[in-house]
Amino acid sequence: MISEIYDVIVVGAGHAGCEAAAAAANLGSKTLLITMNMQTIGQMSCNPAMGGIAKGQIVREIDAMGGYSGIVADKSAIQFKMLNLSKGPAMWSPRTQNDRMLFAEEWRLALENTPNLDFFQDMVKQLIVENNKVTGVVTSLGIEIKSRSVVLTNGTFLNGLIHVGDKQLGGGRMGEPRAFGITEQLVSLGFEAGRMKTGTPPRVDGRSLDYSKMEEQKGDENPQKFSYLDTPKLTKQLSCHIVYTNETVHDILREGFDRSPMFNGTIQSLGPRYCPSIEDKINRFAERNRHQLFVEPEGWKTVEIYVNGFSSSLPEDVQIKAMKHIPGFENVKVFRPGYAIEYDYFPPTQLKHTLETKIVDNLYFAGQINGTTGYEEAAGQGLIAGINAHNKVHEKEEFILNRDEAYIGVLIDDLITKGTEEPYRMFTSRAEYRLILRQDNADIRLTKKSYDLGLAKEERLKRVEEKVSKSEELENFLRETSLKPGIINPILESIESSPVDQAYRAAQILTRPNMTLEKLDEIDFINEFSSSYDDEVREQAEVNIKYRGYIEKEKENVAKLNRLENIKIPEDFDYTKISSLSAEAKQKMSNVKPKTIAQAGRISGVSPADINVLLVYLGR
Amino acid sequence: MISEIYDVIVVGAGHAGCEAAAAAANLGSKTLLITMNMQTIGQMSCNPAMGGIAKGQIVREIDAMGGYSGIVADKSAIQFKMLNLSKGPAMWSPRTQNDRMLFAEEWRLALENTPNLDFFQDMVKQLIVENNKVTGVVTSLGIEIKSRSVVLTNGTFLNGLIHVGDKQLGGGRMGEPRAFGITEQLVSLGFEAGRMKTGTPPRVDGRSLDYSKMEEQKGDENPQKFSYLDTPKLTKQLSCHIVYTNETVHDILREGFDRSPMFNGTIQSLGPRYCPSIEDKINRFAERNRHQLFVEPEGWKTVEIYVNGFSSSLPEDVQIKAMKHIPGFENVKVFRPGYAIEYDYFPPTQLKHTLETKIVDNLYFAGQINGTTGYEEAAGQGLIAGINAHNKVHEKEEFILNRDEAYIGVLIDDLITKGTEEPYRMFTSRAEYRLILRQDNADIRLTKKSYDLGLAKEERLKRVEEKVSKSEELENFLRETSLKPGIINPILESIESSPVDQAYRAAQILTRPNMTLEKLDEIDFINEFSSSYDDEVREQAEVNIKYRGYIEKEKENVAKLNRLENIKIPEDFDYTKISSLSAEAKQKMSNVKPKTIAQAGRISGVSPADINVLLVYLGR
Repeated sequence: MISEIYDVIVVGAGHAGCEAAAAAANLGSKTLLITMNMQTIGQMSCNPAMGGIAKGQIVREIDAMGGYSGIVADKSAIQFKMLNLSKGPAMWSPRTQNDRMLFAEEWRLALENTPNLDFFQDMVKQLIVENNKVTGVVTSLGIEIKSRSVVLTNGTFLNGLIHVGDKQLGGGRMGEPRAFGITEQLVSLGFEAGRMKTGTPPRVDGRSLDYSKMEEQKGDENPQKFSYLDTPKLTKQLSCHIVYTNETVHDILREGFDRSPMFNGTIQSLGPRYCPSIEDKINRFAERNRHQLFVEPEGWKTVEIYVNGFSSSLPEDVQIKAMKHIPGFENVKVFRPGYAIEYDYFPPTQLKHTLETKIVDNLYFAGQINGTTGYEEAAGQGLIAGINAHNKVHEKEEFILNRDEAYIGVLIDDLITKGTEEPYRMFTSRAEYRLILRQDNADIRLTKKSYDLGLAKEERLKRVEEKVSKSEELENFLRETSLKPGIINPILESIESSPVDQAYRAAQILTRPNMTLEKLDEIDFINEFSSSYDDEVREQAEVNIKYRGYIEKEKENVAKLNRLENIKIPEDFDYTKISSLSAEAKQKMSNVKPKTIAQAGRISGVSPADINVLLVYLGR
Repeated sequence: MISEIYDVIVVGAGHAGCEAAAAAANLGSKTLLITMNMQTIGQMSCNPAMGGIAKGQIVREIDAMGGYSGIVADKSAIQFKMLNLSKGPAMWSPRTQNDRMLFAEEWRLALENTPNLDFFQDMVKQLIVENNKVTGVVTSLGIEIKSRSVVLTNGTFLNGLIHVGDKQLGGGRMGEPRAFGITEQLVSLGFEAGRMKTGTPPRVDGRSLDYSKMEEQKGDENPQKFSYLDTPKLTKQLSCHIVYTNETVHDILREGFDRSPMFNGTIQSLGPRYCPSIEDKINRFAERNRHQLFVEPEGWKTVEIYVNGFSSSLPEDVQIKAMKHIPGFENVKVFRPGYAIEYDYFPPTQLKHTLETKIVDNLYFAGQINGTTGYEEAAGQGLIAGINAHNKVHEKEEFILNRDEAYIGVLIDDLITKGTEEPYRMFTSRAEYRLILRQDNADIRLTKKSYDLGLAKEERLKRVEEKVSKSEELENFLRETSLKPGIINPILESIESSPVDQAYRAAQILTRPNMTLEKLDEIDFINEFSSSYDDEVREQAEVNIKYRGYIEKEKENVAKLNRLENIKIPEDFDYTKISSLSAEAKQKMSNVKPKTIAQAGRISGVSPADINVLLVYLGR
């Protein structure tokens, strides 16, 4: 018997659960993190990497808010790359390769050093629900633990079923037991549940590979990092390698298709569209004669290698036979075959923006249980669920990030408004205001909000304020500094930009394509001033100047749309009474219960005509 | 399909499996280590410590042979203590406290750096046996992997059943799935199987303890280490703490006895007598009003604490309620409750001295599957099984350590000769030649043997040879150096030893009680000579001189008994034909099939009269 009544119980210690627990505890909630195995806290179940396109932005947002994912990723990084540097700054996306064991260790140590946070190792098999409100959990040992709220982050563990060819094994991850009981209870309470699928590639012995046949992919020369705090920058890095499949590999894989649970009907549930298995890629893109693979080290010291891009649930003999025809893989030794896993999820239209369920009060869902894929998406939801669980039990306001404030806002609004029938992954294209939602300004966007909540510490706020004022100083300097043709033309020439015939402000010059602050630094008196600013400040000033027009335009769009965001719809609004709404709109809106006209407009099946009807009805 | 045919497949990656895999691979066998989860290689399932009385000697023996346990323990140590220093050198026993996560990490890295060793993550559910010879395994994925030999080291995983109060959960460890299939197959092949039980105490949150109410137990001031190689010596150490239970704690625990699986008949199988649960201790020693507990840190950085001595399978509410009455535990928070686990074992009389089974050729058992308890006992068996599996498939001689050569020899001879009905733990009292089997001379006893096998590297042999010759130099110096009364009497006085009235050799003086080489070093010309020798050499020389009489006597006893060890009994000897043997002797000897007269004499139920009959029959 655990006599303590917790404010927040978090079930599951993956990316979502860890962030949820950290947020609630740091806000002051008495928090309990329950995991089936304390040795597996913070596991990277799939690829040993954090961030990437749109995902790296989420990690920086979590960090700006005072979450731990960025810090843990920095401390366990073995390689850093800023992706998409050739594109505009909205597309720049930080990514680390990580030491899998170290990542988990850093997570566990970070949580152990968090006040108000307790741990318990057991499987939660049931929720205690009284009057439609969750009041605790029951574990597989029959232990009842009381709490004012519960955050479920069960990942792939709920009724997890692993597939390798025609073999099926119960499990939450390969070699780990699955969880059961919760889905059945939630369905009996009126929840709709579904099944999703995901997969993971084989892990192989790096000693058996011939890297001379692959293309080395090094980390950035000047590696950056995720956290806005003083986490260490990498001083040495490990390389990944790029290699391609070929027709022989594909032919061999095809031989196993009749034993593939994906193709023979065994697996009906949908997998992540943008992270398909190798057999899926061959099937869907039959015209392509090769697919790219990333050969990723699993850590500083281990010889284990992750074969990114070769996710598969084909029989392991087929996986191995095919791999041996990949250049450099001729003598490959496999540590663990790839596999697919099916698991229960709950369509996220059953949630509010706070990630609280609509059916059971004080019950929150975060991560794969909501139909998402990806560590970053899970962590972002965990953070929001943890914050809102804390706020609710302490009778504070809901905390919601809007679509123009954070990728995390886009993510959650998409989930609860549109739902998802296949594992949802974040992309920059999902964010209509992506020019504002950059990786460089996540602190400027979010740290003050989080500080006001009581989550981000004062140190973070001070750093942001200093960054903003320093950036303004530098921007002002560049706006005021005049460059004569004799000084600037040689530099313009070097980037093949047309010369000027009169003096221009440095800021104006900077807006030209291919012109950078680094280039301007070739001018001594600019360098003298600007070099005293650190990289983050320089980047911020440069982006603000170069992309000012686009950013201003985007901010205007936000303002326009915010007018609709500001038109609230009462929670108990009865759509069925408005006869002029389409039947589909009535049904969808009754189901989603949008909070604003803008959200109603994002529901698939709700037309602009329906919105106009609604506006009229609400007196606008 | 894994096409490779391995020389040795090792099933399980605990202490036994890891040593078996390392030994076979280092000897040159193509070896495959199969584990259910590659993240849990080298787990310390119970206490975070290696060595201790008699067990520390085993770790040094493994190290002297070129095994890894000592190296891994040294690299992950957080505290070192040489136990029993107040007793004779046969009792000196090294012990480390270890960082649980680091221990596992070091094991995995050591194995990854071992040539000839492959890894595969899966559960073995069946052996392939043809003509009474094992030729491979089948995994839960249905993968057949062929091999010339198999070493089973399944630990507590075979049909593992976890008990906490009246709750029962299938599992190999808490939070990990169990293994099945192998027991049933082996029984169908004619093996006798049994059930054993073991247990583990709760893990608690160190932040919730008040250490000021406990007694600190620091590591040694001059910490030594296990390995004879250059592993690092500890420069800083963590403390353990000692605390005692009391009548209140006992009373609360007693309240749960009716829900105890130990007392209500749910668990029938026997647990480790010398590592009893707290409820066992209260029950068996009802007159004692307190029991000692060791509060042990789980690592350098983690706050997790292991409550050594409080192993329990009582309901977790009873465990927690009782713990709160231990001084310093008033506000204890529990990470994981204690539990008991029942698992399958195979009575080890079904094995040969090589740990090969008598029923199935080329099949070896090591560790808890043989009914032992303890990491060190498991590792020692793993080493011997790995060596013999290699030797058998390469048509080399059996490798057997005798009882006068190593604790490992005593362990295995006890197991296969006497069997065991409760988990077998090593003690110095089990070794009749314990004065020879010291922790300081494991290298002298074993490294040459292992070098001749091809296992210990030349570096080890050179170190031993140098140690022996240096020790002899120092011994000769001490035997030849004469000490006049004026020089030695002040030192004798300081240890309250009677003065001398004539010159004596330093070696003679050294044999006096409480006299040490360190004391003699107060004499400048002794110090000048002896201080150039390192600690290991000085210890060796000192022990050789001080205990020479006892050691010589022990060696004579060995020689005497070796005469009986040298009288071999043919493997197919038919005891039933000797009418003058007792019925019990006939049955036991037919079952055990002793290799020598000496071994026959150690079988319980075989009398000296039976041995005489046998000697006559064999023509002696």
